[in-house]
Amino acid sequence: MTSYHQPVNAAAVPRFAGRSTFMRLPAVDSAEGLDIALVGIPWDGGTTNRAGARHGPREVRNQSSLMRSAHHVSGIAPYQIANIADVGDLPVNPIDLLDGISRIEEGMSRIVATGALPLSIGGDHLTTLPVLRAVNKSGRAGVRPLGMIHFDAHSDTNDSYFGGNRYTHGTPFRRAIEEGILDPARIVQIGIRGSVYETGEHDWAKAQGVRIIYMEEFARRGVDDVMAEVLDIVGKQETYVTFDVDSIDPSMAPGTGTPEIGGLTTREAQQMLRQLHGVNIVGADVVEVAPPFDIGGMTALVGATVMFELLCILADQVRRNRAA
Amino acid sequence: MTSYHQPVNAAAVPRFAGRSTFMRLPAVDSAEGLDIALVGIPWDGGTTNRAGARHGPREVRNQSSLMRSAHHVSGIAPYQIANIADVGDLPVNPIDLLDGISRIEEGMSRIVATGALPLSIGGDHLTTLPVLRAVNKSGRAGVRPLGMIHFDAHSDTNDSYFGGNRYTHGTPFRRAIEEGILDPARIVQIGIRGSVYETGEHDWAKAQGVRIIYMEEFARRGVDDVMAEVLDIVGKQETYVTFDVDSIDPSMAPGTGTPEIGGLTTREAQQMLRQLHGVNIVGADVVEVAPPFDIGGMTALVGATVMFELLCILADQVRRNRAA
Amino acid sequence: MTSYHQPVNAAAVPRFAGRSTFMRLPAVDSAEGLDIALVGIPWDGGTTNRAGARHGPREVRNQSSLMRSAHHVSGIAPYQIANIADVGDLPVNPIDLLDGISRIEEGMSRIVATGALPLSIGGDHLTTLPVLRAVNKSGRAGVRPLGMIHFDAHSDTNDSYFGGNRYTHGTPFRRAIEEGILDPARIVQIGIRGSVYETGEHDWAKAQGVRIIYMEEFARRGVDDVMAEVLDIVGKQETYVTFDVDSIDPSMAPGTGTPEIGGLTTREAQQMLRQLHGVNIVGADVVEVAPPFDIGGMTALVGATVMFELLCILADQVRRNRAA
Amino acid sequence: MTSYHQPVNAAAVPRFAGRSTFMRLPAVDSAEGLDIALVGIPWDGGTTNRAGARHGPREVRNQSSLMRSAHHVSGIAPYQIANIADVGDLPVNPIDLLDGISRIEEGMSRIVATGALPLSIGGDHLTTLPVLRAVNKSGRAGVRPLGMIHFDAHSDTNDSYFGGNRYTHGTPFRRAIEEGILDPARIVQIGIRGSVYETGEHDWAKAQGVRIIYMEEFARRGVDDVMAEVLDIVGKQETYVTFDVDSIDPSMAPGTGTPEIGGLTTREAQQMLRQLHGVNIVGADVVEVAPPFDIGGMTALVGATVMFELLCILADQVRRNRAA
Amino acid sequence: MTSYHQPVNAAAVPRFAGRSTFMRLPAVDSAEGLDIALVGIPWDGGTTNRAGARHGPREVRNQSSLMRSAHHVSGIAPYQIANIADVGDLPVNPIDLLDGISRIEEGMSRIVATGALPLSIGGDHLTTLPVLRAVNKSGRAGVRPLGMIHFDAHSDTNDSYFGGNRYTHGTPFRRAIEEGILDPARIVQIGIRGSVYETGEHDWAKAQGVRIIYMEEFARRGVDDVMAEVLDIVGKQETYVTFDVDSIDPSMAPGTGTPEIGGLTTREAQQMLRQLHGVNIVGADVVEVAPPFDIGGMTALVGATVMFELLCILADQVRRNRAA
Amino acid sequence: MTSYHQPVNAAAVPRFAGRSTFMRLPAVDSAEGLDIALVGIPWDGGTTNRAGARHGPREVRNQSSLMRSAHHVSGIAPYQIANIADVGDLPVNPIDLLDGISRIEEGMSRIVATGALPLSIGGDHLTTLPVLRAVNKSGRAGVRPLGMIHFDAHSDTNDSYFGGNRYTHGTPFRRAIEEGILDPARIVQIGIRGSVYETGEHDWAKAQGVRIIYMEEFARRGVDDVMAEVLDIVGKQETYVTFDVDSIDPSMAPGTGTPEIGGLTTREAQQMLRQLHGVNIVGADVVEVAPPFDIGGMTALVGATVMFELLCILADQVRRNRAA
Repeated sequence: MTSYHQPVNAAAVPRFAGRSTFMRLPAVDSAEGLDIALVGIPWDGGTTNRAGARHGPREVRNQSSLMRSAHHVSGIAPYQIANIADVGDLPVNPIDLLDGISRIEEGMSRIVATGALPLSIGGDHLTTLPVLRAVNKSGRAGVRPLGMIHFDAHSDTNDSYFGGNRYTHGTPFRRAIEEGILDPARIVQIGIRGSVYETGEHDWAKAQGVRIIYMEEFARRGVDDVMAEVLDIVGKQETYVTFDVDSIDPSMAPGTGTPEIGGLTTREAQQMLRQLHGVNIVGADVVEVAPPFDIGGMTALVGATVMFELLCILADQVRRNRAA
Repeated sequence: MTSYHQPVNAAAVPRFAGRSTFMRLPAVDSAEGLDIALVGIPWDGGTTNRAGARHGPREVRNQSSLMRSAHHVSGIAPYQIANIADVGDLPVNPIDLLDGISRIEEGMSRIVATGALPLSIGGDHLTTLPVLRAVNKSGRAGVRPLGMIHFDAHSDTNDSYFGGNRYTHGTPFRRAIEEGILDPARIVQIGIRGSVYETGEHDWAKAQGVRIIYMEEFARRGVDDVMAEVLDIVGKQETYVTFDVDSIDPSMAPGTGTPEIGGLTTREAQQMLRQLHGVNIVGADVVEVAPPFDIGGMTALVGATVMFELLCILADQVRRNRAA
Repeated sequence: MTSYHQPVNAAAVPRFAGRSTFMRLPAVDSAEGLDIALVGIPWDGGTTNRAGARHGPREVRNQSSLMRSAHHVSGIAPYQIANIADVGDLPVNPIDLLDGISRIEEGMSRIVATGALPLSIGGDHLTTLPVLRAVNKSGRAGVRPLGMIHFDAHSDTNDSYFGGNRYTHGTPFRRAIEEGILDPARIVQIGIRGSVYETGEHDWAKAQGVRIIYMEEFARRGVDDVMAEVLDIVGKQETYVTFDVDSIDPSMAPGTGTPEIGGLTTREAQQMLRQLHGVNIVGADVVEVAPPFDIGGMTALVGATVMFELLCILADQVRRNRAA
Repeated sequence: MTSYHQPVNAAAVPRFAGRSTFMRLPAVDSAEGLDIALVGIPWDGGTTNRAGARHGPREVRNQSSLMRSAHHVSGIAPYQIANIADVGDLPVNPIDLLDGISRIEEGMSRIVATGALPLSIGGDHLTTLPVLRAVNKSGRAGVRPLGMIHFDAHSDTNDSYFGGNRYTHGTPFRRAIEEGILDPARIVQIGIRGSVYETGEHDWAKAQGVRIIYMEEFARRGVDDVMAEVLDIVGKQETYVTFDVDSIDPSMAPGTGTPEIGGLTTREAQQMLRQLHGVNIVGADVVEVAPPFDIGGMTALVGATVMFELLCILADQVRRNRAA
Repeated sequence: MTSYHQPVNAAAVPRFAGRSTFMRLPAVDSAEGLDIALVGIPWDGGTTNRAGARHGPREVRNQSSLMRSAHHVSGIAPYQIANIADVGDLPVNPIDLLDGISRIEEGMSRIVATGALPLSIGGDHLTTLPVLRAVNKSGRAGVRPLGMIHFDAHSDTNDSYFGGNRYTHGTPFRRAIEEGILDPARIVQIGIRGSVYETGEHDWAKAQGVRIIYMEEFARRGVDDVMAEVLDIVGKQETYVTFDVDSIDPSMAPGTGTPEIGGLTTREAQQMLRQLHGVNIVGADVVEVAPPFDIGGMTALVGATVMFELLCILADQVRRNRAA
Repeated sequence: MTSYHQPVNAAAVPRFAGRSTFMRLPAVDSAEGLDIALVGIPWDGGTTNRAGARHGPREVRNQSSLMRSAHHVSGIAPYQIANIADVGDLPVNPIDLLDGISRIEEGMSRIVATGALPLSIGGDHLTTLPVLRAVNKSGRAGVRPLGMIHFDAHSDTNDSYFGGNRYTHGTPFRRAIEEGILDPARIVQIGIRGSVYETGEHDWAKAQGVRIIYMEEFARRGVDDVMAEVLDIVGKQETYVTFDVDSIDPSMAPGTGTPEIGGLTTREAQQMLRQLHGVNIVGADVVEVAPPFDIGGMTALVGATVMFELLCILADQVRRNRAA
């Protein structure tokens, strides 16, 4: 167990010192031998309004230096039970959308081929599409399509923009459902809110069977009731977790491209994430952290902390799988 | 119905492009033919501490480019049921208080004379006084005085400042009650909090019959209970709605002149605003958005979204009135 | 009673004018004759990561110009019932940790020797150690050790850093317990959260009898239930109140060295502080306001308002003591 | 002459009030009847590092409200001698590079077809390529290729990026030379500086005959000597003027994607621009103002002022042409 | 000599500690006994666009804590040769222009009546009008009218705004000339630049005999040549020095209401100010520091340093007068 | 030559992607085999006022991603002629001054023992003292004491602070001269300015033979004349180059602890640094970049660019040494 990668010890090396990697873990060049691969996807080519999520991985690495080694609620010490490292950023192309998606899929395929669970940080939400493709084709996911737990202010199931563009950060899950990568009956979206393009904007998704839990329903029912339904929807089969930081209220996560007021508090988000133990997670991501619109690193800190919450869930899953 | 003004389509023209008008609606020169007139009041001559609300309309226009066309909870699509446009800013005078008030009253009188419902964005809270005068004299309000639903951290019913100045953003509603424009028995103030000049600061208002729901009472009772009382107080008669952005917590709306911690969340505010259907609203405003103290446009976004919430309520009222 | 120090009257002198003192009270050179001494401790020599709390007192003074004269919930008008003034900053040494602590203890000893209750603003949390020493040695506290009500994201009961440094802002309460200044059985910590160095990080404190109310327990139980326990733990004996601003969520108090998401809201904090009437308080502080990391003075405003909340509690205690 | 469009009078309507258009001029829907068309190009699809220039036109419009009506050095009052208005933004596509370029060319072609001189604000520097195509095909430029006066920190004559992408904001002028739109012997670049990809990075441009005046040469020779050479190079034939705001030092224009220290001062830039009287200008632009990286609107103010300097030059040219 | 007020010693008390007064000097309640009175004028009621200079004195006090005790070029140690203190802020009225001016004149009259030389910090430039009135009526100035050395981007000699308002920060020196307080033939304005309302905007001032040295002339002639003329213009008679911080380039002083690019560098300003030895100065001010638009305290630091430069000139004059 | 470390190719991997190392070079664990070692010293324990330089190395690494591979003036391509890498940060102790200095000396000694030339980024200026000790004891410097070219606003030759502290960022060069590490007759300080503690503050340094070129002398003489004297003073013997970023004007480098207006422009600094070819440099550093006070990364970009300028000088020296 001592052979697992360990973060730099902050009681010896201050948090402001040393290289900037996810969770202060070693930087490695390959996911070989890892249980969980932390990876950046610095790309926002699908952004229709305010770009900037391309800078997300670097700032989340920076703020993740504030994370310590164990979870104070679950008691999980991830680096004691799983081999985890920072595998760097996936290759991207900032000026060619289709090439960008293709490079991300290829890069992620190499990671999941090693058997490591990917925990990535975007990048805009379109990055989740090539990640899902890679996880589905090359990864552990033995069955298709996948279920998905989706925290977001937006459903991201629109059809096209700007006269026919079918790939934007507003369309990834429509594409993934069409491609058979996601099982719409096992998708649940939490935190959806804000004005819509038209009254029936979510009709297509609902018709496919996607369960949308709007902010208002969430506020009325509370965390525990909602999460019971969420866990029931995804069941025991392979599930992906995607966390759009704009699910969080803009006062807590201002650094994002499409803020919507009236959002989740970080406290609510943490309470929900901590209930994911036992879900069969094949990968997870945090997206839409856009540092040029951030204030004092606040959003990157939320991103890093959500990443740590997910990391503890994934490490526990590694432990359980190993025990099984 | 197709003849109503429509906002620019964001799936064709990105949100960062095109002219900056309220909700990306057409800019028109007169309120003639409109059901609802969106109007700016760039004036903060009544501000006793931190000025800046004069810049509010421009930044709220800017952030309102993030608003879409329909309300995701009520399903109301305002531009399908009412004719709405941006009528520009009222004339102001930044260096002469009494002339400033007078110009605002005159400008607003021209708007309400057309029969359009005014939805304005300030400006400091003293701007509401001339607006109320105009609505009362020239507008639809067939009876006087008006009721008022008032979201704020402060009661704004002080008497005078700086040795006798009776017109400041701390005094508008005392003046409006004295002038017989407002019916104190039909005024309800929500979110009031913060230290006071003296223990009995609110005694005058209470003695007139104004109902003050302090933050503490609000927190204890919750949205639904409070709103039941609010709707009961204003009844079916003509009512004005005024939303001071400092009712919202400074973490969510830092860009204002007189912040008070421990405020409303935007979620609570939205829940309250959505219960205003059926109130007989003769006009509404959002005030005290002060961009020089704002952070990343956060407060202007709150202002724009509250404006959209109110717009949906007003459009629904137009529809109901037309049906009746 | 008219001889008590009074703050500048904001209805005569605007809040942006005049000298910058705590609550706009007179600046005095000695605590002689005061019931409550407001004092700055501009020192962050114990900070292990992001320094900056040395600038806290100046910015809290600045933002405290927004405070008025009476508490709108309790009705307490502190300057009518107690003699209160700004006694300036304690002497410090920014580049020598042990000398810094020693100067603070000495400076605070002079204040408490006059019989004034100290209400200080740090500075990092290590400043509370010399303050506790002074209060215990020279102050009113006739018995030792003291109880303590401690609002914080962190327990601050670690042992050492950087290869043996026993004095940092992560260790003050371990030292104070070891020195016999604090009675661990009468310490209660509220708001503790965030990842930990190791799973058993808090074992030592718990073994001493310190009661740690983690954020999760707080969220589950609510303010009233938690405060009932808090008041029970400290009882009627001498108690110190220390408020680390990082107990508050970073969206509301970003200007601090060690932010942890998922924190207390200011509304919750105010509700708790208002229940401290009747506690036998021998001194209080607000610490870890770090202006270089603050945004628009937001955290300093929280610090100033918490200070005013505590001031009202202390003034009421002065009144009760005098009556008794 | 009184029939020319006039800006809003700031001695009547304060600068913070009213609609946000370039120079507070009327917003018109077509360039028909204009001598000079002010136009936004909100597109940064060619940006290889820090995107954000898509937000440039809106913020430059905002800051241009500080411009007054006449030039204090030349005495030119542009709105007295030419018909000028804000024709809005060109159509763009933020997620498809080739479609984006194509829309810009088409939109600009419509403007220049009216005979109006275009003065545009980007957008990244790749926008200048489709503008040059439009000016060359549809505009007044009766001869091809054009000369160009080019203020920039970078030569922008690279060949390709990211494995073959030939269209980025680092390549527009190589493409324009290859397409025969620009005459390399009549191109002069001023302010070029900063580290280079390789020692021979500028060899291709120099081989074509482009004259590069590096920052060091500029500093040594001074404004007057440099401008004499510049005017000599472009001669009396049709010439385009392109002003990349990163030619200015980042302390004065921080809001740009690729800052290089040691740049031009605004004073030097103004002195140079004021010597352009008499050049046969067929169009001009200001590019790379990236508001998400700007500080207090500083760079947008530089952009707006440079735009006003160019506008005075263009208006004077209109006057001379009309006189001829 | 040891009886003169001394600033706090920064080698004993760090610059971030202690009360915030001008230059860390004692705060006194009256100018009695002082040679030079440092005074704040927190008022911006004359501002036609971006208000905020009301917050200037507080932030300049804050940044002045960086000033040390002696001038490194002239060797002047002002606190060794003159009695200097911070006399606080003048009374103001933020919501009534004429009352505001009147209070400022009254307050300043009390100061100059003691014989102390006033060095004030605004406030917008309209504050200089009542200061000049006070200096002229009550101060040492035995002759009228005064000469004036005026650093500014704007001439501030307009006639009226907003339909007849004759008192704004764009008109003070027209009023002062009309009132006979200033001798136009002994006024010199340096750094004037930026677009103008109309081509002849400065004709009135020039016709009175005011010497306007535009930025372009300054840049061409250089500091020494310009200052020779300046000193010649004001001669040996009583002269006031007014320094509008917008004379400085906005990259160095962004925190001001009416920025104009292409301004003076601080280095040039310091070189000019250091040549004022020997001028018969009857008072001086620094105005238009507007903290809400400032960035990182940059402009307040410029304001504080200019104030220190002027203070050294004034102290030297006190010494010379005493010797004479 | 192909075996030298190369930076990541930005035409393949965008500048916002990939790990954050100095100049995007490989991160290595030891200086063995390197010609030049780039190293961070994240420590500001000697800072007497505004701390924050501890965060300098991380942000300079971040901004150094904007640097390319060759110098556009000298044509030097450092990575083609020398083996260069990022060796990480030296060990530090943020809360114990003497232990901090000792760790830095030890860490730097390990680097210089390999024969690599150190180019470090602080950290406050006290870090230069242990670096000089290491270079002198363990490095190539075969003779002692060293010469030094010192760019700074301050002489940093004070004696003690806060009642006897002899080690602060205001004293390093007095200590180094006393320890015999520096030869005062071969020290030249450029850019010195700002008010002083007392008129004779620099007398000790001057008495030792240190040559202080104040800002005023620099401005008068110009770059070439000053640098001729500088090169003459240090001669051909071993020389250290230390660049305090506060030598640069605060408008260009606001992120520093002790800003002084009227400073060097970056253009002037670059012109001076480019004349250092031929100096026998045994090490160099850039210090006092304090990100918490920085604005938009401006100062870190200056730091990174100055580092690149120095790197080209050092690489050329490596080439010459190898040739010799």
